[in-house]
Amino acid sequence: MDVGAAMTFGVFSLADGRRRIGVRAGEEVLDAAAALPRFADLLSAPVLNPLLAAGPDTWAAVREAAHDALDRAEHRVALADATLHLPIEVADYVDFFSNEHHARNAGEIFRPGQDPLPTNWKHIPIGYHGRAGSIVVSGTPIVRPCGMRRSSAGPVYGPSRRLDIEAELGFVVGVGSPLGSRVPVTEFAERVFGVFLLNDWSARDLQAFETVPLGPFLGKSFATSVSPWVVPLADLSAARVDPPARDPEPADYLSDAEPWGLDITMEVRLNGHVISRPPVRENYWTGAQQLAHMTVNGAPSRTGDVYGSGTVSGPEREQRGCLLELSWGGKEPITLPDGSTRTFLEDGDEVVISATAPGPDGSVVDLGAVAGTVLPARTG
Amino acid sequence: MDVGAAMTFGVFSLADGRRRIGVRAGEEVLDAAAALPRFADLLSAPVLNPLLAAGPDTWAAVREAAHDALDRAEHRVALADATLHLPIEVADYVDFFSNEHHARNAGEIFRPGQDPLPTNWKHIPIGYHGRAGSIVVSGTPIVRPCGMRRSSAGPVYGPSRRLDIEAELGFVVGVGSPLGSRVPVTEFAERVFGVFLLNDWSARDLQAFETVPLGPFLGKSFATSVSPWVVPLADLSAARVDPPARDPEPADYLSDAEPWGLDITMEVRLNGHVISRPPVRENYWTGAQQLAHMTVNGAPSRTGDVYGSGTVSGPEREQRGCLLELSWGGKEPITLPDGSTRTFLEDGDEVVISATAPGPDGSVVDLGAVAGTVLPARTG
Repeated sequence: MDVGAAMTFGVFSLADGRRRIGVRAGEEVLDAAAALPRFADLLSAPVLNPLLAAGPDTWAAVREAAHDALDRAEHRVALADATLHLPIEVADYVDFFSNEHHARNAGEIFRPGQDPLPTNWKHIPIGYHGRAGSIVVSGTPIVRPCGMRRSSAGPVYGPSRRLDIEAELGFVVGVGSPLGSRVPVTEFAERVFGVFLLNDWSARDLQAFETVPLGPFLGKSFATSVSPWVVPLADLSAARVDPPARDPEPADYLSDAEPWGLDITMEVRLNGHVISRPPVRENYWTGAQQLAHMTVNGAPSRTGDVYGSGTVSGPEREQRGCLLELSWGGKEPITLPDGSTRTFLEDGDEVVISATAPGPDGSVVDLGAVAGTVLPARTG
Repeated sequence: MDVGAAMTFGVFSLADGRRRIGVRAGEEVLDAAAALPRFADLLSAPVLNPLLAAGPDTWAAVREAAHDALDRAEHRVALADATLHLPIEVADYVDFFSNEHHARNAGEIFRPGQDPLPTNWKHIPIGYHGRAGSIVVSGTPIVRPCGMRRSSAGPVYGPSRRLDIEAELGFVVGVGSPLGSRVPVTEFAERVFGVFLLNDWSARDLQAFETVPLGPFLGKSFATSVSPWVVPLADLSAARVDPPARDPEPADYLSDAEPWGLDITMEVRLNGHVISRPPVRENYWTGAQQLAHMTVNGAPSRTGDVYGSGTVSGPEREQRGCLLELSWGGKEPITLPDGSTRTFLEDGDEVVISATAPGPDGSVVDLGAVAGTVLPARTG
């Protein structure tokens, strides 16, 4: 793989604990502020936010300078020596529901015999706000959440029995927009710095109990994991594809002249075994449309806003992005190589979601991975 | 009114534009950092967050010192000369739905003939995450939002035709709790610094179109207004009352030995005319239970988290906290003194929500007011 093909940005520390911005170079990390003194004011921050806020001209200049610095092979540390941190200070977090396969599967599982797709689904990218403070970096242990769920004896409190993952792409907003304004679809690449991988951990039983009438809350808010390296949109130009055909045509504010579908293929590993390869290109609504929708009512966007693409699924069973779909609501367990079966996650399970995309000239863009291991619920 | 009865904290600036913390003293503002040099590091911040994070011992010490300083009548400026700002940097924003009158009214309006109360409602405080970046200080103009709504010709894009208010109390978290931990009901007063008034502006038609299956999104995220003065819980001790009796008994984690109902009475004025007096004491779930619920799944809380009590309504029509209820879904317009009628808000309408509570020794705690005027939708 040509490591120059993608210029991914993260935050790392060494033994001294000081957080600093790094650019990944294969198995090494470029100490960005040291290597690029011209941009030291932006790059010596403990999060990417100042760089994000600086806008696309600066992003391009920093990438060019970093490319030159990588050729010089100075100011590098071994990735193995680096502790990786949450790369951004998250402002608001929104999670979408924009993959038709996922939406139809969820509808068939939860409302069998009815039209699986909500009537609004093809008119707007359905979404909701999640808990920004619960976003954690890859590797953070995931404590099984407790809460209220239904039982044959009535509502009962206890550890979730249906702990799930959701494989998503996360978009990172660089340049915000003020209250009362709207972001056109065409401004996507000027405002969104890049993407990372996102695992929207979900407690399906807590979610089912609470979700009518105001949507997901505790079933999602206990943790959302993201990969440590943010991949600039500029590195995904070779991965751009037409999204699925839209029927009906959406409202003008969602109309997209430019193709912002992304040919990113994820791999979901459960205890080392690949259980799914969700294809991002199948997402019906793109990140450009999602940002336009999120702000069409005049809501502001801010540097550090994160929004999730929605669970990524494809037409095949082995392309489904969550265990709810993979086990069809718990009715069709999947079997792992050790002979054990899973409907939902067990304590000790490790989930790793990685992804790659086509880069320029036949290269491959490595989007890294987001990992998490399930710890038992806390008692008391 | 005894101005010493409540010690409300806000952020103001004078002609030089520098934001600083103030303590309200009737029609004057105490410049807190100047008056209380011992706490200048906390009080010279442009937001209350450092003070919030300092915890209850410091809150008590600052209040005592401020009380002494107010007696000295130094370091004061006229309230009329001060520009008031959003007093906190908001971390996460959650909005609850914890008043039974409001929940039943909304159920009867939206689902006539069915049980108006969702089946989970008496088991947990139902809530959802809102958009933290959309929280604005009292006086910020509210631009009528645009979005998709239902029409007889199918989904249509345009300005909201059912713009509403929701009169709520907002709780401000001071001392956060880490990921994976839970906040017991008993820690409420150690963690929550105080309250302000909150108007959760709502576009009912946008909300109706989007809300199934993931809850409110653009129908709420365009703006949430808060009053500029945060009233410490310590100033509301005389306002504490038993909440409504619970039936059934909630789960242990929601069990409350101490009464954290609050005898706060709001006044909602539309163009100067009082249209409602919502009684906070009617709220079924208290702020203590809401914080316990929000964190029972291990979600972290942070300094600057805000959560809304839910729309406050009472058993009488003139105690309803939103126009949806006051006009019974638009079917029963209210008449203003000028002879005009309202179902929902018109461009140019001004809404002011104020509130008072009993203070010690027969005094009255003034919670101030949150105001906003509706501007026409932006075209294009």
